Amino acid sequence: MPDVNDEPLAANEISTRSAGQSAGQRAAKAGLSGRRIVALAGGIGGARFLRGLLAALREDDPAATVTVIGNTGDDISLFGLRVCPDLDTVMYTLGGGIEESQGWGRSAESFAVKDELLAYGAGPMWFGLGDRDIATHLLRTQWLKEGLTLSQVTARLCERWQPGVRLLPMSDDRVETHVLIDDGTSRRLVHFQEWWVRLHAAVPAIEITAVGADEANPGPDVVDAILNADVVVLPPSNPVVSIGTILAVPGIREALRSTTAPVVGVSPIIGGAPVRGMADACLTAIGVETSAAAVGALYGPELIDGWLVDDVDAASGVDGVVVRSHPLFMTDIDATAAIAHAALDLADFVTL
Amino acid sequence: MPDVNDEPLAANEISTRSAGQSAGQRAAKAGLSGRRIVALAGGIGGARFLRGLLAALREDDPAATVTVIGNTGDDISLFGLRVCPDLDTVMYTLGGGIEESQGWGRSAESFAVKDELLAYGAGPMWFGLGDRDIATHLLRTQWLKEGLTLSQVTARLCERWQPGVRLLPMSDDRVETHVLIDDGTSRRLVHFQEWWVRLHAAVPAIEITAVGADEANPGPDVVDAILNADVVVLPPSNPVVSIGTILAVPGIREALRSTTAPVVGVSPIIGGAPVRGMADACLTAIGVETSAAAVGALYGPELIDGWLVDDVDAASGVDGVVVRSHPLFMTDIDATAAIAHAALDLADFVTL
Repeated sequence: MPDVNDEPLAANEISTRSAGQSAGQRAAKAGLSGRRIVALAGGIGGARFLRGLLAALREDDPAATVTVIGNTGDDISLFGLRVCPDLDTVMYTLGGGIEESQGWGRSAESFAVKDELLAYGAGPMWFGLGDRDIATHLLRTQWLKEGLTLSQVTARLCERWQPGVRLLPMSDDRVETHVLIDDGTSRRLVHFQEWWVRLHAAVPAIEITAVGADEANPGPDVVDAILNADVVVLPPSNPVVSIGTILAVPGIREALRSTTAPVVGVSPIIGGAPVRGMADACLTAIGVETSAAAVGALYGPELIDGWLVDDVDAASGVDGVVVRSHPLFMTDIDATAAIAHAALDLADFVTL
Repeated sequence: MPDVNDEPLAANEISTRSAGQSAGQRAAKAGLSGRRIVALAGGIGGARFLRGLLAALREDDPAATVTVIGNTGDDISLFGLRVCPDLDTVMYTLGGGIEESQGWGRSAESFAVKDELLAYGAGPMWFGLGDRDIATHLLRTQWLKEGLTLSQVTARLCERWQPGVRLLPMSDDRVETHVLIDDGTSRRLVHFQEWWVRLHAAVPAIEITAVGADEANPGPDVVDAILNADVVVLPPSNPVVSIGTILAVPGIREALRSTTAPVVGVSPIIGGAPVRGMADACLTAIGVETSAAAVGALYGPELIDGWLVDDVDAASGVDGVVVRSHPLFMTDIDATAAIAHAALDLADFVTL
């Protein structure tokens, strides 16, 4: 982030300032074509935002390149298969292979393998591995076993999907988010997916830990991409278990602090509730209020220069961060592209 | 095999001797109830014979136990999955899960995973892994990785299928049949499955080798099962790459020689052609004529006491082995049960 001395401004004031100028117009005016944009992303929310971002760039800055640093803390091994839910959600969503109705998994999916595993009495069954999805995991697992890194494997898988972004795992090292829960009789650590998918985050999390993050290295190009970016965006992904886990990899948070690029975030909280998912359960676990202002403050001026909140949260202030408001419900690609436009506008604004 | 001094007898003479007595009647007469029957088996032919054998035993000797020593030389790793085609064919066939129309693979199979792998441009594609089948391979691979032996894994998989036999892999050690071929430009070694499935055994095999067999140990209970058997049967499996590979594991051939049980084989060749499969290509590779007599002689009196051939081959003689004839086409379960009856009759006969 650049050295920003701005005091937080009222949203209305900011909105007035930027009115009538699209990011493209602004970019063209400032000679900002072919921008190098970096986004940190989790799963569904991040992937949908990125689809809007690409749509916005097609119009405004078709020469722009987008590098996505994907969360791998949700990764899990199931039936010997290495599953990377967030990377795959980004890849499938941007590559046109996602099941739109749910936002994850492959479109037109079938479950013959799962049914058979069930017939064998094998578990766990709470994680729905579809047949088409399994092909991705089979190749990933095979290639990892052959000695390729997760970054190399992800690049290979993307050769098919052509997501229109460079998708980089946050790290090639194993990081797994574990959750300490108390189910009434005892405290135990469970894999994030077990808490999220099997328990629907209904059992309160006492502690959320990115196991292995301390010793993990950022993936190749991750730090360089941030340092050489023209804009860095934090999409409305889960601030604890998606963005938070990426930031837990030593070097990534520092890169965000050091980069001269503007860093802007898009709030995943609208009017005190997560746009989707169960971010509130994660925020509660780390003692943060479920509000746009609180999440903005969680990132804080050390990390972000601008914070885009929904119009209902327009009054939110974050010390040392420029806050601007815009309707943030990603109801369709046009609405999402408009959010991305607003984020890029905000990035331009905080750079000036 | 017992010490047999019988000269080979003309088939007609033998048929006359045994006429009117089923194996069950004979077994009952001789007090042979609850016989311990051991069969060495390859894939489709072996599995179908075994189904007939079980049908025959349900009628004649319901207390009999059948131990199947399965060929694992055809095993192959595909997409990181450990595939055991012959074990699975036996398990699926006897467990009611086989695709009857082809004799291998799961019934009502789908191919979503395969289609996706193809969309990734991944290979090889000549081996048709179905979705339901993949569940079996996923569990096997996972359990092997967890440290279970192939024998233990096979027993676990059979808990679901209840094949009605004890299915023992010939060895827990890796043995892979490789084939030396000359494709016109160069000589190269290919995995048996590549020669068999991809090349349809149309390129002549110069040499067939069970790689690893020399150092392999028989699976637990394999030798004991043979030594403690009341009857040992060699079904009409491929004498080179199925039965031959099992016999290549040090200790198994010796056990067949040492057992006091009668050992009888069923010819896979009828009228100079294999009943199914491409056994002729394998026999040619080892310099053996494709005839019932030649295969009987390949096993020879050191291994077998009785040799069941088709009626069209009734004139076949094998030095030191009792040859008897019976219609050998396994057209349905009744016909196959009758073949099994004839084999058990022959076993009784050579014991007398």
